[in-house]
Amino acid sequence: MTIRIGIMGYGNLGRGIECAIRQNDDLELVAVFTRRPPETVRILTEGVNVYHVDDAIKMKDEIDVLILCGGSATDLPKQTVEYAKYFNVVDSFDTHAKIPEHFENVNKMAVENNNVALISAGWDPGMFSLNRLYASAVLPQGKDYTFWGKGISQGHSDAIRRIEGVKNAKQYTIPIESALEAVRNGSEPELSTREKHLRECFVVAEEGADLSRIENEIKTMPNYFADYDTTVHFITEEELLRDHSGIPHGGFVIRSGKTGWNGENSHVIEYSLKLDSNPEFTSSVIVAYARAVYRMKNEGMSGCKTVFDVAPAYLTSMSADEIRKNLL
Amino acid sequence: MTIRIGIMGYGNLGRGIECAIRQNDDLELVAVFTRRPPETVRILTEGVNVYHVDDAIKMKDEIDVLILCGGSATDLPKQTVEYAKYFNVVDSFDTHAKIPEHFENVNKMAVENNNVALISAGWDPGMFSLNRLYASAVLPQGKDYTFWGKGISQGHSDAIRRIEGVKNAKQYTIPIESALEAVRNGSEPELSTREKHLRECFVVAEEGADLSRIENEIKTMPNYFADYDTTVHFITEEELLRDHSGIPHGGFVIRSGKTGWNGENSHVIEYSLKLDSNPEFTSSVIVAYARAVYRMKNEGMSGCKTVFDVAPAYLTSMSADEIRKNLL
Repeated sequence: MTIRIGIMGYGNLGRGIECAIRQNDDLELVAVFTRRPPETVRILTEGVNVYHVDDAIKMKDEIDVLILCGGSATDLPKQTVEYAKYFNVVDSFDTHAKIPEHFENVNKMAVENNNVALISAGWDPGMFSLNRLYASAVLPQGKDYTFWGKGISQGHSDAIRRIEGVKNAKQYTIPIESALEAVRNGSEPELSTREKHLRECFVVAEEGADLSRIENEIKTMPNYFADYDTTVHFITEEELLRDHSGIPHGGFVIRSGKTGWNGENSHVIEYSLKLDSNPEFTSSVIVAYARAVYRMKNEGMSGCKTVFDVAPAYLTSMSADEIRKNLL
Repeated sequence: MTIRIGIMGYGNLGRGIECAIRQNDDLELVAVFTRRPPETVRILTEGVNVYHVDDAIKMKDEIDVLILCGGSATDLPKQTVEYAKYFNVVDSFDTHAKIPEHFENVNKMAVENNNVALISAGWDPGMFSLNRLYASAVLPQGKDYTFWGKGISQGHSDAIRRIEGVKNAKQYTIPIESALEAVRNGSEPELSTREKHLRECFVVAEEGADLSRIENEIKTMPNYFADYDTTVHFITEEELLRDHSGIPHGGFVIRSGKTGWNGENSHVIEYSLKLDSNPEFTSSVIVAYARAVYRMKNEGMSGCKTVFDVAPAYLTSMSADEIRKNLL
C-alpha cells in the first residue's frame, strides 16, 4: 500500500515534490491543486489530475498527506492552519521569527481535528536546524555558526529588481572562506555580519539607465546589502540566462566545543550541503517528512510537529531491522 | 530535579562520562561502579562514591539511568542485557555486525522489565549512523560513503603490539584526500579499501629486534593491514609518549545523490567530525542519549532503542518552545 500525496501549489517547489515522489516507491501522487485554471497547468506525472484549490477538501479521504507549497509571507500562515482541519499536512514555512506563532496556530487546528501537521521542513529550517540541535546537545559547552551559500537568494534578487532601471538580477550569497576556517579551527571567533558572507550581484540594466546610481542603491540598501561587502556586475540579459539560470544553494552548520574536566579537548562538528537545486532538495526533505507524518498519524499521534519531534526511523522506507543492520 | 546517573566501569569512557555530566546542569552523577577494589579507584567528582559492581543492583532506586562503559567484545553483550532488568541503560556497543543480535537480547529484557535501553550510542555507531539515515532518506537515489580519521585505531595499535619484538605502537587511520574529493564532486566513484584509507604506524621496537621483519609482518597482516597502503615509522618510547599520547579521531559521512524528473540535479550532503578525544566525544553523545532515555521512560516507553528511535528534541535540556524559537 502506498502513501497517497496531494500537492497544493505547482511552482518550483510543487514540481520538486512531484519529482521527489517519483523516487520513492512507497509514495504516490494522487492530485495537484492550483489557483490557476486547472486546464492550463501541465504536470509531469501521467494519469494524475490537476484540480482547482476549491476542490481540495472534497478529496480529503483520498489523500493521506497534503503538501503545502505556498510562500511563507502570505500563503502558509493561512493555508497550513486551514488544511490541518481536513488533512495531515507538511509545509516549509521558513520565516524563522514567526515560527512560534505559526506553530501555535497550526497545533490548535491539528489537535482539534486529530491530524498531524509538520511545519518548517526543508534544509533551513530543516536539516540545518536538526544539526544545530544535535551538535548543541552533544557539545553543550561550545558555539555554533551557520553559513549560507554559495547560492541564489531569491529575496535579495527581488530587492535588486525593484530598483528603478533594473530589468533583471540574480544575487549570490557567498560564505567567506577565512571565516569558515576560523570556525573550523575551533577558535570560536566573534564574527560580524560583514565577516561571514559576501554578496555578489549580476544585474541587467534597462537601456540608458544610470549604472553608478543603481550600483550605489544596491550597495547602500539597508538590511539587504548595507552591512555586507557587495560586488555588482552589469551583464546582458543573454549572459544572465546563460550563466545564472540555476537555483543552486547550500551552506554550513559548524559547532566547536570543549570537553574534559577542564575543557582541555576541542571538537568540531560540521554539516554542509552543496545543492544544484534549492527547491528540489527542499522537496526531497519535505517528502521524507510526509512519510513520517503518515506513520505518526497511523500510530495515533496528532498536533503540530517540527523536525525536532520526529524520530529519524520514521523518515525512511526501510524497516527498523534493515536500518539497524545496514545503517547503524 | 536532576537526572541521576550511574557509571558502570571507570576507564577512558567512564571518565569521559563523568566529565560530560559536569557540563550538563540537569544531570547528576550519583555512583561509579568498578570491578576493582573500590577504594583503589579515585574519581574526579567530589562527594560521589565508588562501589563494587556487585553493589549496583541494590542502588536501582537511586539511579535513573545507568551508563555501561565496558567493551563490546565481552562486557556489553552480557552487561547491557543483565542491567536492563533493573535499570534504564545506555551503552556504546560498536560491533556493527552483531548489533541485530544485541538488540534482540536487550529488547527482550527491557520490555519484560519495563525499562528503556539505548544501545550503540557514540559517533560510529551513533552520529554517523544518524547522518547515513537522514541523508539516504532525503536522497534515496544516491550513494553514501563513510571515511574514518585521521585518528588512532585502538584495534590496529593492539594488533601491532602483539608482534614479537614490538614494545609499543600507535596506528593512525587516515582518509585519502583524493578519494574524499572524488566523493564530494558527486561522481559516486567505486572505491576499493586501499583507495579510501591509509594506515600509518609508529612503532617502538625492543632493543636488537629485526626491524625489517616487524615492518613486513605489519604490512602483510591480513584484515588489519594487507589491504591498505601502510607506512611504518620506528621511533623511541620517548617520542611515542611525546607525540602520540592523544586519542584523536573523526571522519566523514558523505552522500551524493540526484533529484529532478530525470536525475538532472546533483546534491552533496557532508557530515564531519574532528575530535581531540575519541572517548570524551563518545561520552558526550552517550550523556545526551541518557537524558533522552530518562524522558522516554517517563513518557511510558520501554524496550531497546537506537539513535534512530529517538526524536531529537529528547536530547537537549532546552524546552520545546526554546528549540523552536532558537534552533529551528
